[in-house]
Amino acid sequence: MAFAHLVYPGAVHTRLHHSLGAYHLMCNALNELDNKGIAVTPEEKIAAKAAILLHDAGHGPFSHALESILINDATHEDISILIMQRMNDELKGQLDMAIQIFTNRYHKQFLYQLISGQLDVDRMDYLTRDSFFTGVSEGVIGYDRIIKMLTVHEGQLMVEEKAIYSIEKFLVSRRLMYWQVYLHKTVLSAEMMLVNIVKRAKELLSAGVQVTSNSFVFDFFLEENHADHFSDHLDKFCLLDDFDVLSAIKNWMSHQDKILSVLCRLLVERRLLKVKLQAEPINEVLIQTLRDKICLHLGVTQKESSYFIFTGEAVNTTYDPSEERIRIILKNGSVKDISEVDNALIHHTLASPVKKNYICYLDTEAGI
Amino acid sequence: MAFAHLVYPGAVHTRLHHSLGAYHLMCNALNELDNKGIAVTPEEKIAAKAAILLHDAGHGPFSHALESILINDATHEDISILIMQRMNDELKGQLDMAIQIFTNRYHKQFLYQLISGQLDVDRMDYLTRDSFFTGVSEGVIGYDRIIKMLTVHEGQLMVEEKAIYSIEKFLVSRRLMYWQVYLHKTVLSAEMMLVNIVKRAKELLSAGVQVTSNSFVFDFFLEENHADHFSDHLDKFCLLDDFDVLSAIKNWMSHQDKILSVLCRLLVERRLLKVKLQAEPINEVLIQTLRDKICLHLGVTQKESSYFIFTGEAVNTTYDPSEERIRIILKNGSVKDISEVDNALIHHTLASPVKKNYICYLDTEAGI
Amino acid sequence: MAFAHLVYPGAVHTRLHHSLGAYHLMCNALNELDNKGIAVTPEEKIAAKAAILLHDAGHGPFSHALESILINDATHEDISILIMQRMNDELKGQLDMAIQIFTNRYHKQFLYQLISGQLDVDRMDYLTRDSFFTGVSEGVIGYDRIIKMLTVHEGQLMVEEKAIYSIEKFLVSRRLMYWQVYLHKTVLSAEMMLVNIVKRAKELLSAGVQVTSNSFVFDFFLEENHADHFSDHLDKFCLLDDFDVLSAIKNWMSHQDKILSVLCRLLVERRLLKVKLQAEPINEVLIQTLRDKICLHLGVTQKESSYFIFTGEAVNTTYDPSEERIRIILKNGSVKDISEVDNALIHHTLASPVKKNYICYLDTEAGI
Amino acid sequence: MAFAHLVYPGAVHTRLHHSLGAYHLMCNALNELDNKGIAVTPEEKIAAKAAILLHDAGHGPFSHALESILINDATHEDISILIMQRMNDELKGQLDMAIQIFTNRYHKQFLYQLISGQLDVDRMDYLTRDSFFTGVSEGVIGYDRIIKMLTVHEGQLMVEEKAIYSIEKFLVSRRLMYWQVYLHKTVLSAEMMLVNIVKRAKELLSAGVQVTSNSFVFDFFLEENHADHFSDHLDKFCLLDDFDVLSAIKNWMSHQDKILSVLCRLLVERRLLKVKLQAEPINEVLIQTLRDKICLHLGVTQKESSYFIFTGEAVNTTYDPSEERIRIILKNGSVKDISEVDNALIHHTLASPVKKNYICYLDTEAGI
Repeated sequence: MAFAHLVYPGAVHTRLHHSLGAYHLMCNALNELDNKGIAVTPEEKIAAKAAILLHDAGHGPFSHALESILINDATHEDISILIMQRMNDELKGQLDMAIQIFTNRYHKQFLYQLISGQLDVDRMDYLTRDSFFTGVSEGVIGYDRIIKMLTVHEGQLMVEEKAIYSIEKFLVSRRLMYWQVYLHKTVLSAEMMLVNIVKRAKELLSAGVQVTSNSFVFDFFLEENHADHFSDHLDKFCLLDDFDVLSAIKNWMSHQDKILSVLCRLLVERRLLKVKLQAEPINEVLIQTLRDKICLHLGVTQKESSYFIFTGEAVNTTYDPSEERIRIILKNGSVKDISEVDNALIHHTLASPVKKNYICYLDTEAGI
Repeated sequence: MAFAHLVYPGAVHTRLHHSLGAYHLMCNALNELDNKGIAVTPEEKIAAKAAILLHDAGHGPFSHALESILINDATHEDISILIMQRMNDELKGQLDMAIQIFTNRYHKQFLYQLISGQLDVDRMDYLTRDSFFTGVSEGVIGYDRIIKMLTVHEGQLMVEEKAIYSIEKFLVSRRLMYWQVYLHKTVLSAEMMLVNIVKRAKELLSAGVQVTSNSFVFDFFLEENHADHFSDHLDKFCLLDDFDVLSAIKNWMSHQDKILSVLCRLLVERRLLKVKLQAEPINEVLIQTLRDKICLHLGVTQKESSYFIFTGEAVNTTYDPSEERIRIILKNGSVKDISEVDNALIHHTLASPVKKNYICYLDTEAGI
Repeated sequence: MAFAHLVYPGAVHTRLHHSLGAYHLMCNALNELDNKGIAVTPEEKIAAKAAILLHDAGHGPFSHALESILINDATHEDISILIMQRMNDELKGQLDMAIQIFTNRYHKQFLYQLISGQLDVDRMDYLTRDSFFTGVSEGVIGYDRIIKMLTVHEGQLMVEEKAIYSIEKFLVSRRLMYWQVYLHKTVLSAEMMLVNIVKRAKELLSAGVQVTSNSFVFDFFLEENHADHFSDHLDKFCLLDDFDVLSAIKNWMSHQDKILSVLCRLLVERRLLKVKLQAEPINEVLIQTLRDKICLHLGVTQKESSYFIFTGEAVNTTYDPSEERIRIILKNGSVKDISEVDNALIHHTLASPVKKNYICYLDTEAGI
Repeated sequence: MAFAHLVYPGAVHTRLHHSLGAYHLMCNALNELDNKGIAVTPEEKIAAKAAILLHDAGHGPFSHALESILINDATHEDISILIMQRMNDELKGQLDMAIQIFTNRYHKQFLYQLISGQLDVDRMDYLTRDSFFTGVSEGVIGYDRIIKMLTVHEGQLMVEEKAIYSIEKFLVSRRLMYWQVYLHKTVLSAEMMLVNIVKRAKELLSAGVQVTSNSFVFDFFLEENHADHFSDHLDKFCLLDDFDVLSAIKNWMSHQDKILSVLCRLLVERRLLKVKLQAEPINEVLIQTLRDKICLHLGVTQKESSYFIFTGEAVNTTYDPSEERIRIILKNGSVKDISEVDNALIHHTLASPVKKNYICYLDTEAGI
């Protein structure tokens, strides 16, 4: 969960925990489908379980935050597939079916939907787990009940009508966890600072300034994106983890480049950039005033100041019927999208995404 | 929780647990207000705690279900007040302030609102507790966070803007618990059967048929409503509990009156009347068809059949701005109702109550 | 748990919970043995599960407390067997094997040992459950680990060497739960008062005094023991429960017999007899002094005073190697009793039972 | 918990969690003493809370494992005191009393005993926390009950007689956690491998071979012990953490020194040295046979092989009355050591430490 522990100190659970948890829920879901007479062969079960165990294997250090900046264009799903393929070679094809399911090329599409869909076991695990470890009890969902209500109709994963309140609750919890945890101001600030640190290191490197992380794998990815022949460098990528990044940041606290060293010191000493989130656009005059102060305070140029002041947009959608498909199978056998069911809390006025603008800036009056 | 344990076997928690829990939350809430500098004297604290400890003291056996039928017009709140007054006499006025708070005659109205309002500690405890003991995890609310966000503005209890998602979640959980637990079909059926049993016993008694429960206090309230001079009979009422009712029902399984004995046998042996809940009105022809079958099956008259077939309405409102007042105090100091806040899940289309019609009937084909 | 809720208000869990829990553990244990290659047929699994589900069916109201007084000599195990046999007749022999297992007449003895042995799932469930609902966290045991370590050797249930610390902990927890919960002074006092109430009611009845409970089944067992032809009265016994006893006690609060009415009032109003537990024998002079005070205070004879003052012995054994057999199978394949294993906490000096003497008496100075 | 997560994947809780937890228990304990009328001033409370919050501040990376090897002779308690003194200078003496308490120079000795004694809040927190995060439920202790039973008599912390079973359980749990978690074979092996890696790095450095970690602070402590003027280097020590060590180990996987690189690869790839624990001494012939195989397999000298094969002793004492003092205050006011109390589980035969011998070696047949 990257920097969520800065707000919720308990949130130190790991990707291993999540993978084991999602695997456990997959076992439960497959059992449930079995009990309902939906044909799943033993081989398909093993393949689906292998796929969910490995679904996040491609995450690099600090997951989403550094994904775009360390390896251009390669998503963690792409890398997960590369890793599965590498393992599949070693295992002489034993992961063939798992890879087909994971890439949605297997004919029983509901198996893919269990791994990556609106009601997949991935989300059910991470919402439950993140809620537990942060202590944000509003995020609790009835995953066991939802799993009990899963069914397959015309090859598609759907839920029985009785589950409608549990699904509503699931969507409301997800919405809440976004604002309360994943997009929390402090978490956002720390993540953006991390991104800026890596950006600056790369900028310096391309300008010929020496910046060694002292981790040979981190150096490797800082110097070049390696996106072109990424699969040649998979072993190195797999060795790279949070420890390399955090250790480098500590080293860079005394780097000669002021921008890099200040950002690193601020992050390590937990003196984070200030964040404001609001529905309205950020006032341009305010931005310029703050920027001028920062330039003066740190002795940096207007351009360089962008490492210490910047704006952006945080978006959260409760349920978007145009993209998402949570299908309810009614008692009479017909199928409806959850947004069309009578009395549903989740309806079209909630469907549009909620956007918030944010500004992140160094508070020059905070004695930094 | 009356008959909820028929569906959720874990739901055997008692009113004592709830009273202690609500008392605990009251302590937390008063501490929180203290920390925010809202003046509450030590005497007021004790009074508010005493009031919440006793707020449900007036509940009779099977709470709401038998309230209207055993003592006409007397609500459990009225009886709680009678009990407090009796205790106050014995305690020489030590409960004066507690009674003022409980009856909303104390000038610091927010103390009353903590006991009986939209965000009172009563609801926070029972939602949390019922969710825990039923295992319906969707009912989990962030009571500790809501309490941390409570404040008082112009004498009224309200919540800080940061709590808005927790409040949304609280309302969604309440809505869900109603449909999933309190208005569950099986629970509804068992409660209505209990009501009919007591109704029939009273009907027979007023027709001169001998019906003794063998509990002298239960007999006392079966024979007459005693609503007029209720306070004279408070001691007897306090002795009456679920045990007397359940023990009587077992005795009545072999009563000579067929209607009474059949109802008692069905309830004890857990062969409950069937329930259908639906948005549309119940079809009149269907009702008559079922009724005719029952008359034939049991050998009872059309009028008597009403003990075994009847219809009704179950109502649940997510949030009714016309009646409820959850006030949010915004960061800029202004106050809004939760239904007026931007991006809120709880808005006017959810404000209208959801009504469902139900029919309850003896399934003559189930081998009863 | 009879009156344990007087000390631990949370302890309102029921026999149904325990039966379902023990059934759940039986499923886990059988799965575990399966995984270890110990042959158990599907029929044997169903039989063992049925047997554990029904193992406590024969418990009457207030379990052990009233067992000896309501039906002479019939233990709840005997009655459980009668109930199983009755069900077996209705089910046309489907419970044959379950009954064989339950009565230790089935050739695979380890199935019986899972139901009734030193490490049976019955104990594992009740220790865990009672610890949870009382909040006595010292009673927590590692039931899942013990189950994972179960194995069968030469037809006998035993545990692997690795489980030795978990078993030690299990025995220590059991010891602790006895002193802290099951033999708690308040619990002991309330149970003895209940026994005396029933004893007095029976004494009065045999002297020709009218004593009707509010329940025809309770009356039936009060009037006569019915031990001789007990199976003829099984239906009545099954209808009898705690509600009948508690409702009767409330009625008897105003019985003309002073001893009966005083005992009932004291119990209902929770003014319990005082208890002292000590290693030394109770001083005879003290007993006589207290007895004289009680006779004077209540106006009863020395003989009658025995309802209000009496002594007894509470016994608790941590582990008795002469009776119990917890067998450990060592890594080298040999089998030892747990008391013989090196470094074990559980050794012969702990083997002798700990006896405590108690006196229970009406405290005449407490304003009763 | 160093490498405990290799066995118990949930065990990723941090020192921050433990410090906050111990602080929480300290608050509870001080409240409890307050309620019992034991004089503790507000200043003493703050001091005791500050002391417990900082009691583990001096732990370096991997706590106990690297303590002796990174900074000769300096224990983490010594370093905690240095940190407190440094903070005290900055805070202008506000930590004076906290330091007096922590170093047992404050006249109310029981405050020190709450931080570092047989029943201190440090142990109560870590046993509870480690039990929770490992899932070893046998480690659960009744910390809240023990705290409720704490009292002070003649200036010394002791427990009331009623707590005796809870204390027994506490000692048994501690014993169990040692064998099951802290001295678990896999944990032991990984820790010893870490120690050997750091030893080898230092050995190479002192022989003039270049070995740079990725961290300038780690390099600093690898090159020299800095024990003499340690307080001059406190800032650097505070920057050093697990991340530096783990990142260095990953770099050293490709170091030119075979011993260093093999050890690092084995640890990172989780192919740990094998461990045997036994009561008897390790057979010398066996050691030599294994050693010869390793020398042959890796091409190292007999002396060098000691990095891959070595023996040692693991010691665990349930309760040592000669060193420990858990004092029980009996109802009659007299004080006894827990080992002297009647019927106690904890008596002299348990007092002697349990020693186990272990051998740790590279299994040359495991394809490493």
